[in-house]
Amino acid sequence: MGKKIVVVGSGAAGMTAASAARETDPKAEVTVFTEEEHIAYSPCAIPFVLEGKITDFASIVMHDPEFYQRERNITVRTKTSVTSLNDQDKTLTLSTGETVAYDSLILATGGKVFVPPVEGADLPGVYKVRTIADGMEIQKAMKDARSVVVAGAGVIGLEMAVALRHVGLDVTVVEMFPQVIPRICDQDIAQMVQSYCESLGIKFVLGTPIGSIKGEGKVSSVMAGLTEIPCDMVIMATGVRANLDLPRMIGLEISPLGAVRVSATLQPYKRGRLVPSIYLAGDVITCESAVAPGPTMSQLGSTAVRQGRVAGINAAGGYATFPAVVSPWISKVGDMQIAGVGMSSGLAAYYGLDVVVGRASGLTRARYYPGGTRLEVKLIADRESHRIIGAQMAGGEELNGRINWMSAAILRNVTAEEFVTAFENAYCPPTSMVKDVVNMAAEDLVKRWMA
Amino acid sequence: MGKKIVVVGSGAAGMTAASAARETDPKAEVTVFTEEEHIAYSPCAIPFVLEGKITDFASIVMHDPEFYQRERNITVRTKTSVTSLNDQDKTLTLSTGETVAYDSLILATGGKVFVPPVEGADLPGVYKVRTIADGMEIQKAMKDARSVVVAGAGVIGLEMAVALRHVGLDVTVVEMFPQVIPRICDQDIAQMVQSYCESLGIKFVLGTPIGSIKGEGKVSSVMAGLTEIPCDMVIMATGVRANLDLPRMIGLEISPLGAVRVSATLQPYKRGRLVPSIYLAGDVITCESAVAPGPTMSQLGSTAVRQGRVAGINAAGGYATFPAVVSPWISKVGDMQIAGVGMSSGLAAYYGLDVVVGRASGLTRARYYPGGTRLEVKLIADRESHRIIGAQMAGGEELNGRINWMSAAILRNVTAEEFVTAFENAYCPPTSMVKDVVNMAAEDLVKRWMA
Repeated sequence: MGKKIVVVGSGAAGMTAASAARETDPKAEVTVFTEEEHIAYSPCAIPFVLEGKITDFASIVMHDPEFYQRERNITVRTKTSVTSLNDQDKTLTLSTGETVAYDSLILATGGKVFVPPVEGADLPGVYKVRTIADGMEIQKAMKDARSVVVAGAGVIGLEMAVALRHVGLDVTVVEMFPQVIPRICDQDIAQMVQSYCESLGIKFVLGTPIGSIKGEGKVSSVMAGLTEIPCDMVIMATGVRANLDLPRMIGLEISPLGAVRVSATLQPYKRGRLVPSIYLAGDVITCESAVAPGPTMSQLGSTAVRQGRVAGINAAGGYATFPAVVSPWISKVGDMQIAGVGMSSGLAAYYGLDVVVGRASGLTRARYYPGGTRLEVKLIADRESHRIIGAQMAGGEELNGRINWMSAAILRNVTAEEFVTAFENAYCPPTSMVKDVVNMAAEDLVKRWMA
Repeated sequence: MGKKIVVVGSGAAGMTAASAARETDPKAEVTVFTEEEHIAYSPCAIPFVLEGKITDFASIVMHDPEFYQRERNITVRTKTSVTSLNDQDKTLTLSTGETVAYDSLILATGGKVFVPPVEGADLPGVYKVRTIADGMEIQKAMKDARSVVVAGAGVIGLEMAVALRHVGLDVTVVEMFPQVIPRICDQDIAQMVQSYCESLGIKFVLGTPIGSIKGEGKVSSVMAGLTEIPCDMVIMATGVRANLDLPRMIGLEISPLGAVRVSATLQPYKRGRLVPSIYLAGDVITCESAVAPGPTMSQLGSTAVRQGRVAGINAAGGYATFPAVVSPWISKVGDMQIAGVGMSSGLAAYYGLDVVVGRASGLTRARYYPGGTRLEVKLIADRESHRIIGAQMAGGEELNGRINWMSAAILRNVTAEEFVTAFENAYCPPTSMVKDVVNMAAEDLVKRWMA
């Protein structure tokens, strides 16, 4: 009999962990339990299905349980939740009443949408955006709706606002912070995104948390401060919190950030000691930041995949570590791409870091080459060491590689001067300016110290 | 009176040098001499004007001499060549007969198209692709032409082939090497590009240098080996050699690569000693490679701009150095982008390096997100140190940032394992797969040592 490896959770972290475990130990018995019906899909795709950019929900599912069984000898049991966990006996109990033993356990239970404790949050007409099931409910409801309030102006909130506006709804976004994409994006870039959304007809109420949700048997309005906003639907895009049910059940150490603290091997701690045989991956854990000392959350699909790989390898008896992160992110809001990595100026201030900011505006292609779009780049460096610690960009195309480029520079501790001196740009008129806007922003950054 | 700074050459290197000199020393007298009529344009744009993607030649000129005079207090004298240079007296003589004194001289005389010494190379109907004047001649000639032979299957040759095919000509590309984009691109990626070009109706004769060019008073055919290819036009895209007229005149040291050897401050040598007061930038010099020990050529527009900045700063009394390069390049051939950086496998073999290659195929967006294109990535690492030393990509979009990302990794000595462990990808369905194809190629690379 092979080693029994059990994975709880079927998102990017869980399914990647299962596959990595299988690859590491061809003889292991790998089983995935998930309370969901659909597995192996990207929740990030939900707004784009609702917008009509992606055909349907079926198309975002990469593989079904049969695929995993047939191609990878991984058993996936859907609609099966884990109700209890005993890490002494190494067993877990399922919603079916069965008890399952494991040799290695991978907890990839992800996050839950944080719904603020406001009156009326449980009314029909209030939706979350987390699972395909959530997406399907919204898709059904939006057919008869005329107006919607999106609570939360993070990237999911904005993508949802654009999607719902695109199909003709009256959309108001209510955000507690005084800007869109708070924390990870600075006010200046955020303002560009907001203005773009406003040009699509989306309304914003910023600096105001949602108060109560009103309605008799169904949502009819939302209070934002003293303003009452009539609506048929409310989308809760109010952030994701780690799903700590199982970790708490066995007393795993929780970081003050509200997720499970893990070692570089993605193992949890219990009363200060590393727990053998348990590994975690995805939205449920904290990790180390490569820009500010200490723990951070990196609740990104791309992070989940990288953590899943490490957890799977280790659970199967291999060895891999998960390093400090810079967490590059990207979003497409209508025709606008926004991306960032590392520290925003706002977060840097929160951490007490004194920063210098460089900026440049330009185009994604040579000025005269048709189809290029504006590109705004902002680079953030530590004032003392000159090290680049953050970047943000907004533009119409080609941001993904550029933000990864900056991620590499930040990961490798590049200073503003080093970037200007040594970091080259590939050029041809259809794909870049001869000096890329990123390089221009780095030159602007260096000048800030000379000024 | 301010310092007299003279720049010879008005391309990317020369004009950037003039601007950097002006910025460094606001009091200097900065003068540019150029034999060209048009200044401050990108020769890389010429094929795209001929293809009709860019409106006209006027639109690729960034600025005219009046702009430089008015905005930057830089005097540009067009159609004025430098006929002799005396570095003892610090004077140069112009084609007008004038003698001009300088305190600092910047030579940015660029390159000349290498025309192989074949019979008939001087016949009417044989064109180069270097200046706007060349481009205008081709534009005029192609109206009446029906068939063309492009000599050279480098990126310029292929871009020209696509442009001329696009307007309906019968196009044959003749290349001495047995593949397209030789040296910088490996056979496998080259084959994809060639197949794509063939799908457009472009014909190839590879592994065959052009023999003679035949015609009475005008081109009528080209001999490629024993094959006679009838044609009305020949495009010489046979590579660029440094323009060494002035450097040779004063005995500057020439590298065996056929360009001027310079220090990190971009100063030349004469009998082993650094020459004061002279700086060089652009296609006329060699520089250091960051992947293989020793000198290399980096005849790219983006390199010229970066060197121009260093030469201009130093010529004006500032201090800057030009570091070792990885020379990322990109080309758009029809709807296909091709990019590379660092060593190709072929070049690595030439340098005696034993390499390991990783490959991956995927898409530029999530599988289910419309508009994505195939993306092929190849990574090359040194077998002993595991350091990544090269990358090549082919795809339909979004290659520029991705190749810059790999450039950063190569510049910072990242190993295959480090890339897999630490190098993050920003993800959203419209802009990338959750694990980018670049990351997949790195995983494939790491597996090669385990196999």
